[in-house]
Amino acid sequence: MEGLVPCDANYVPLSPISFLERASFVYGDKLSTIYGNTKYSWREMHERCIKLASALSQLGISRRDMVGAIAPNIPALNELHFVVPMVGAILSTFNTKLSPTILALHLEQLEPKLIFVDSALISLVLDSLSLISVVKSKPSIIVLLQERHAGLETLNLIKQEASLKNVLTYDSLMEMGHANFKIVHPKDENEPIAVNFTSGSTGRPKGVVYSHRAAYLSTIAQIFRFEMGKMSVFLWTVDMFRCNGWCFPWTMAASGGTNIFLRDDITGKSIMDAVFLYKVTNFCGAPIILKKIADVIDVGMDKLPHSVSIMVAGTMPPPEVQEKLEALGFRIDCGYGMTEALGIVISKPWKSPEDIHNDQGNEEEKMVSAREGIHNLMVEGVDVKDPETMESVPNDGETIGEIMVRSNTLMLGYLKNSQATQDVFEGGWYRTRDLGVRLKNGEIELKDRAIDMIKVDGKSVSTLEVEGVIIRHPMVLEAAVVGKPHINLGEVPFALLKLKEGSSVTPEEIMEFCSIHLPSHMNPYYVIFGDLPVNSTGKIQKFTLREKARALQSR
Amino acid sequence: MEGLVPCDANYVPLSPISFLERASFVYGDKLSTIYGNTKYSWREMHERCIKLASALSQLGISRRDMVGAIAPNIPALNELHFVVPMVGAILSTFNTKLSPTILALHLEQLEPKLIFVDSALISLVLDSLSLISVVKSKPSIIVLLQERHAGLETLNLIKQEASLKNVLTYDSLMEMGHANFKIVHPKDENEPIAVNFTSGSTGRPKGVVYSHRAAYLSTIAQIFRFEMGKMSVFLWTVDMFRCNGWCFPWTMAASGGTNIFLRDDITGKSIMDAVFLYKVTNFCGAPIILKKIADVIDVGMDKLPHSVSIMVAGTMPPPEVQEKLEALGFRIDCGYGMTEALGIVISKPWKSPEDIHNDQGNEEEKMVSAREGIHNLMVEGVDVKDPETMESVPNDGETIGEIMVRSNTLMLGYLKNSQATQDVFEGGWYRTRDLGVRLKNGEIELKDRAIDMIKVDGKSVSTLEVEGVIIRHPMVLEAAVVGKPHINLGEVPFALLKLKEGSSVTPEEIMEFCSIHLPSHMNPYYVIFGDLPVNSTGKIQKFTLREKARALQSR
Repeated sequence: MEGLVPCDANYVPLSPISFLERASFVYGDKLSTIYGNTKYSWREMHERCIKLASALSQLGISRRDMVGAIAPNIPALNELHFVVPMVGAILSTFNTKLSPTILALHLEQLEPKLIFVDSALISLVLDSLSLISVVKSKPSIIVLLQERHAGLETLNLIKQEASLKNVLTYDSLMEMGHANFKIVHPKDENEPIAVNFTSGSTGRPKGVVYSHRAAYLSTIAQIFRFEMGKMSVFLWTVDMFRCNGWCFPWTMAASGGTNIFLRDDITGKSIMDAVFLYKVTNFCGAPIILKKIADVIDVGMDKLPHSVSIMVAGTMPPPEVQEKLEALGFRIDCGYGMTEALGIVISKPWKSPEDIHNDQGNEEEKMVSAREGIHNLMVEGVDVKDPETMESVPNDGETIGEIMVRSNTLMLGYLKNSQATQDVFEGGWYRTRDLGVRLKNGEIELKDRAIDMIKVDGKSVSTLEVEGVIIRHPMVLEAAVVGKPHINLGEVPFALLKLKEGSSVTPEEIMEFCSIHLPSHMNPYYVIFGDLPVNSTGKIQKFTLREKARALQSR
Repeated sequence: MEGLVPCDANYVPLSPISFLERASFVYGDKLSTIYGNTKYSWREMHERCIKLASALSQLGISRRDMVGAIAPNIPALNELHFVVPMVGAILSTFNTKLSPTILALHLEQLEPKLIFVDSALISLVLDSLSLISVVKSKPSIIVLLQERHAGLETLNLIKQEASLKNVLTYDSLMEMGHANFKIVHPKDENEPIAVNFTSGSTGRPKGVVYSHRAAYLSTIAQIFRFEMGKMSVFLWTVDMFRCNGWCFPWTMAASGGTNIFLRDDITGKSIMDAVFLYKVTNFCGAPIILKKIADVIDVGMDKLPHSVSIMVAGTMPPPEVQEKLEALGFRIDCGYGMTEALGIVISKPWKSPEDIHNDQGNEEEKMVSAREGIHNLMVEGVDVKDPETMESVPNDGETIGEIMVRSNTLMLGYLKNSQATQDVFEGGWYRTRDLGVRLKNGEIELKDRAIDMIKVDGKSVSTLEVEGVIIRHPMVLEAAVVGKPHINLGEVPFALLKLKEGSSVTPEEIMEFCSIHLPSHMNPYYVIFGDLPVNSTGKIQKFTLREKARALQSR
């Protein structure tokens, strides 16, 4: 085997940068970007990114520097997914709905040298910066992403801030750049490419670091997961600050498809309009988008003229929402994933009413569909294990264990937090902290997050399972269940329900409904009505509800 | 970035073995294999492979050992693509049409510890072994791949050979194995997984070594190239000794599709029967399969009831063959590749007659379609360069350069031939020895292999271009052009043509036809008629024709 060592010809560190270079070459004339009247081909997008990278390099941004970005889904934010890595730097996109205080925490942790800010978000960023005392945590350069050239006023506003002399617009940055800039490819494919902060439903946000290799392989896995053809049209409904938009900036470059941007105008109507106007083939996000669309579907509306696939991750809306969409021709897939896994890990097509009818499984089947799935190509393994012994639980559908993942598509680890990284990867598997069982067919059923399992009179109760029953009550729109301390039983289920518009039901009726479908110790002891507490990304914040439940007890 | 280093949870060396493990898990009950009445699910195939690997390990086969295999396309050969790597060993599948002498050359170079032999090929192997003098080049163990249990006679035959005491059948090997064998995953993804010998149209065969990483990435690229869905049915028409069957044993495991085996019964009829019976979605190979199918298509035959995609690589048959297949509903893609690149590098859909009509390009367009294409996902770059300066040629469609490739999907190098490896990767690019030009749109047009370019009166002539014109003559079925030494002009084009059945044409008529379409120095000086010399894989052997042309001169 002498002489058989990788060389420059047959070993190129895997990086999503390659996808853009290839797209500009093989899909040069195809549209990469449509945003109202703004349109770029893949060749143009590549040229723009080269020039921007050249300019970043001139500003002194180089290998391993941190670059922040905060903006709604606009073409510039998509471009930054290539531009920043092209100088060897690391991109972190921030949640646009953060409070100045939380954003300050992010900035302090990240210490970006430069930050790209959408004109509409400049006050948020300035407020946040005013809270940061350590100078090195403050970005020394701000680049303003101009939104239809409406940012000049704010430009003056920023220049008044004494500490921020280096303020540029995106267009002026582009003008600085040279077309012959030489891209900085990673020397090692395990070098970091991005940091995504977790949305923080379980405590202090952590910076989740992605490598070039993981991003590259996740991108490819995405294409297979979605069965995305070479002519896909992707509508940006998922926020780019969520796992880098589920890696879709890179996926679209790899598949040579077209990105459709709507900024933050994501309504049922705007989605349906875009689907018809641009012949959208794919979009994704939190299940709330399904409800938004269902709300604008009229009876007798024409079927979709082409195939449209939606991937959602999270608690599914009631079956009738899905049925309404499927009847129109949408194909819905449900995924399970997390920031640490660069997005979806397991997924499954939502079964059509016809399939379910044939399966005889009916309602029951429909309810679990969102919780099971098969792990994707590129994921080496998903298992349900006893977290102590690391042994797999039996495929009995009963024994609860922790869902664990082994994959090249996992994060490198947490930013500046070796201990947390070590903890979460202990034993050679990524510990999701989610609980599940293995079904007979090998599939996983997600039970609950460890923190959301409660102990009632010594018995484990999955609050997700209780929610799953309550949501089937015809008057209920949404449900969240948490544990509430109880003097004799330890904990008891506490339910907060949102009813359908115009509906009315008593707590007793809900409890009676549950008693038909659940063993008595799982029935909610308390039922209250109201809006569910959600965070900026639509995730139910159980810790808020838990506090509410506790507070009620003290009365 | 402290603590951010790859660990067992987030870094698993890329290997096609993972595809089988995943398939047995997520596609467990789906059929992996159909071969007449023999059917295995992915779970069964995984179990079989585990047991076989266990048995190989018991026989002393371990990391970096060479294992040979010679058989037509049968399930066992497919299984060996997993079994052999699962003990860390390296698989080499031999061309079943080799002469004993050439096979002996392969064996001497490879030095396999063990060889799997199809019962029908045992005499070939015994003849070949008798030619080998060095003991260590001879496999000490032979495993007989039983073909419907017809191998017992030959089993006795082998046992008479004094040097070959260790003779086993595949079934008895399977029985030796344990179901709890622990798979040997590569420690480094750049470790070798397979050796493929080049078919030798340009001299002494070379052993082309593939790594686990390259095989893994090529597999994924294949799925994208073919737009293979999760329900694909692959018909084995391409020989598994060609680039490991274009990596399809691994591709099918990755995509969870079904393999259909016909052994060596690859006729137009058997292909069409299989397409209808098994709902085949994909197959591939040399363009001869297109002709085989065209021959059995009757006028008025029903259109295919489902989509079938064919990928071919090599000189395309006349347009009417393709048109006949397309009219029935086949989708044809043309690829360009080589053993060193694990198969196809660039590919392009064959344009339908309708497209071409719209393009106004007509015949001209059709002829070039086989020669151009776009490089696949995973291929970092394909360029046409001056081999001396390594600079890219201009996109003028005229300047000839060498086609070069940079890709993670390239071979590691040549077996026991560091010099050849170094030469072919010199300058950080794989030098294909093929000549081409860059068209205005960036696509590559293959001109000829360097060795097939000829110099007529000091001017470079592509014999491929001359062939491309001759094949358009209505009476001509196939054409091969080589250079023939000429006392004044240096070389002149020499053409060997096979006419369509029942056709008749004179050399003068061919020359006249060419003079309309080619500059005078490119016109063939000699035109003869007869069968084209092809090797066992259907590749035209130009060196044989070149000798023939030379011999004619001496008369």
